[in-house]
Amino acid sequence: MQNFTYFNSTRLVFGRGAENDTGRIARDIMGRCGKVLLIYGGGSIKRTGLYDRVMKSLEDAGLTVIEKRGVQPNPHMGLVRETVDWMRDQGVGLVLAVGGGSVIDTAKAVAAGLEYEGDCWDFFEGKAKLEKALPVLAVLTLPAAGSEQSIRCVITHHGTKTGVGAECLRPKAAIVNPELFMTLPKHLIAAGVVDMMSHIMERYFSATTETAYVDAQAEAALRTALEFGPKVWENPKDYDSWCQIGLVGSFAHNGYFGMGRVEDWACHAIEHELSGWNDAIVHGMGLAVVIPAWMRYVSKKHPARFVQFAVNVLGIEKQDDDARTIELGIAKLCGFYQSLGMPITLRELGAADCPIESLARHCCRSGRVGHLEPLDAGDVTEILISAR
Amino acid sequence: MQNFTYFNSTRLVFGRGAENDTGRIARDIMGRCGKVLLIYGGGSIKRTGLYDRVMKSLEDAGLTVIEKRGVQPNPHMGLVRETVDWMRDQGVGLVLAVGGGSVIDTAKAVAAGLEYEGDCWDFFEGKAKLEKALPVLAVLTLPAAGSEQSIRCVITHHGTKTGVGAECLRPKAAIVNPELFMTLPKHLIAAGVVDMMSHIMERYFSATTETAYVDAQAEAALRTALEFGPKVWENPKDYDSWCQIGLVGSFAHNGYFGMGRVEDWACHAIEHELSGWNDAIVHGMGLAVVIPAWMRYVSKKHPARFVQFAVNVLGIEKQDDDARTIELGIAKLCGFYQSLGMPITLRELGAADCPIESLARHCCRSGRVGHLEPLDAGDVTEILISAR
Repeated sequence: MQNFTYFNSTRLVFGRGAENDTGRIARDIMGRCGKVLLIYGGGSIKRTGLYDRVMKSLEDAGLTVIEKRGVQPNPHMGLVRETVDWMRDQGVGLVLAVGGGSVIDTAKAVAAGLEYEGDCWDFFEGKAKLEKALPVLAVLTLPAAGSEQSIRCVITHHGTKTGVGAECLRPKAAIVNPELFMTLPKHLIAAGVVDMMSHIMERYFSATTETAYVDAQAEAALRTALEFGPKVWENPKDYDSWCQIGLVGSFAHNGYFGMGRVEDWACHAIEHELSGWNDAIVHGMGLAVVIPAWMRYVSKKHPARFVQFAVNVLGIEKQDDDARTIELGIAKLCGFYQSLGMPITLRELGAADCPIESLARHCCRSGRVGHLEPLDAGDVTEILISAR
Repeated sequence: MQNFTYFNSTRLVFGRGAENDTGRIARDIMGRCGKVLLIYGGGSIKRTGLYDRVMKSLEDAGLTVIEKRGVQPNPHMGLVRETVDWMRDQGVGLVLAVGGGSVIDTAKAVAAGLEYEGDCWDFFEGKAKLEKALPVLAVLTLPAAGSEQSIRCVITHHGTKTGVGAECLRPKAAIVNPELFMTLPKHLIAAGVVDMMSHIMERYFSATTETAYVDAQAEAALRTALEFGPKVWENPKDYDSWCQIGLVGSFAHNGYFGMGRVEDWACHAIEHELSGWNDAIVHGMGLAVVIPAWMRYVSKKHPARFVQFAVNVLGIEKQDDDARTIELGIAKLCGFYQSLGMPITLRELGAADCPIESLARHCCRSGRVGHLEPLDAGDVTEILISAR
């Protein structure tokens, strides 16, 4: 195991009606009354009544609210810049995201931009170090990205999805009421389950050894997702099952399952090329295509970890031949994805015509991706071709 | 599952040589140079060189250090009061504990006392609400109590062990270097494993249903302790295994495994009577006696949870008769304790002559203890008699 620091400073406020505490929590974070910038997506939070409940809670706490709506999936830098320009020097004290990962990531980028004199794309390009941001508070409507407890923020700009991570971006509080997930469309429920599992898997598929504690915690969380993912997909009104999925998703990306080891993140790097190339691609659906193809490719060089995954997570009986155990594991994972209506090929994803070689080159523009097996553009090309 | 808030604000700094960062971390917490009150136990940290390394780190960071040594196991209010009186108005900015749970709990009590005008025993008696304490920083030398990440503090006063919990007591950082555990005597290694497992079990044995995520996380952590506890006991130089035990111990008591459910804590209440009655009793050893007796008593009324524990944690094959599955589980747990040289009867604990009825009455002086099955003094008496 490697030396590490783990610091998860997000207050998780979880359960029925939790959003009604938004105002009190926001005020506690700011330490005073003040101006809240509320960021959200389309009209769904108005249709469900969530908008009204959050607004009432903010007003009851004596807070002033300015709204910015219109965040799209795979959120763009344009909206971030527009919001920062509009809000600069307006005395905003906190950025409140009401939505899923795209809304929360937009809020994080805006929170960083409002504390920076230059263009906050500098942080994504590595031209400036991100050390200061306004406090972010998240009311989660879609368990998937884990952004509500994470230090990460992914924004698309000119077709390039770029992530940045900084402690100051971690939301001060995450408000998670599983009741809010009951109206999600099935394909987003499934893509969310794929995404949250991938955040654990990107940490689990590591070359670092002697990590039994985090391995066992990760395996248990993945089994929980395998058990309860289909339940919420089948019956989105199942509050108790949503509680389990909500917890998997929220802890998946806060660093807990990565303690003491090098993480991989090749699958995310590859998938970001797909959903960067075409905004209409849902990130979790892209991952369902990339992950099995990546597993088939990388497991040839690093079989042990994939055998452990097949046995401990997917419940495959260990075969005499490791390759067979791994094959059965990947097949079971694919079957799981398919049972949730997820694509497992580029064709099914609607990306049969994606420019594989150019995406692979772009993916590796700063060097190899992944740690368990660092991949160059040739490797990524092979992986994507095998996913056709 | 119940609504809950989870907020673990302790920065965990983990790995080889971590203690050499103590000064920098202390300074980061205080935000400036200042006066650190260093609290420790006997001479062991001097013998191992830990004292010198910590002092050098503090000096290198430009901090002034005042020392208070002499904390005993099952720490007493006398030392807390003496330290608070001595240090009051001395401008201490941070209390640094270098030791195990007793030292950290003493540091927490002192940190609370220095921010309170009255006698800080008021907090333990419920006469005052604990809302403010100096920041506490812990360098852990014994993985057991989990106090390095917890909000709890247990102090003995006139033979009564009393706990208090408050967010302000949670250490700002926990410095955990598993190398420091390599010189521990075997009975403290074993008692530590028993204690950390009990912190998970007190949360696991709950009447709250629909807690699959935390159940699976707790079961995985308990299995990790069952696997690696004997390894560190057998070979205390085994760094890699200590890493796993260090993680189990540190997360066991920070609230993670209790999310969304009512916790029990009857076994701790009962054991505190034993080690409160006789300071020489090691808390973890007392727990090894109390827990199986409590299980036999409470499992009769709540068999399902104990069957799950036997099967999922101890690997017992489910029998047709639940009582038999439970019996096999408890027997295996007792065998595990015994394999580590732990007592499983009051006689083996050296407490054959303890005044059971009076301890039971004292245990229930504020009402029943435990939640899965709330126990009155008669129940506690029966449990302790069965443990003779």
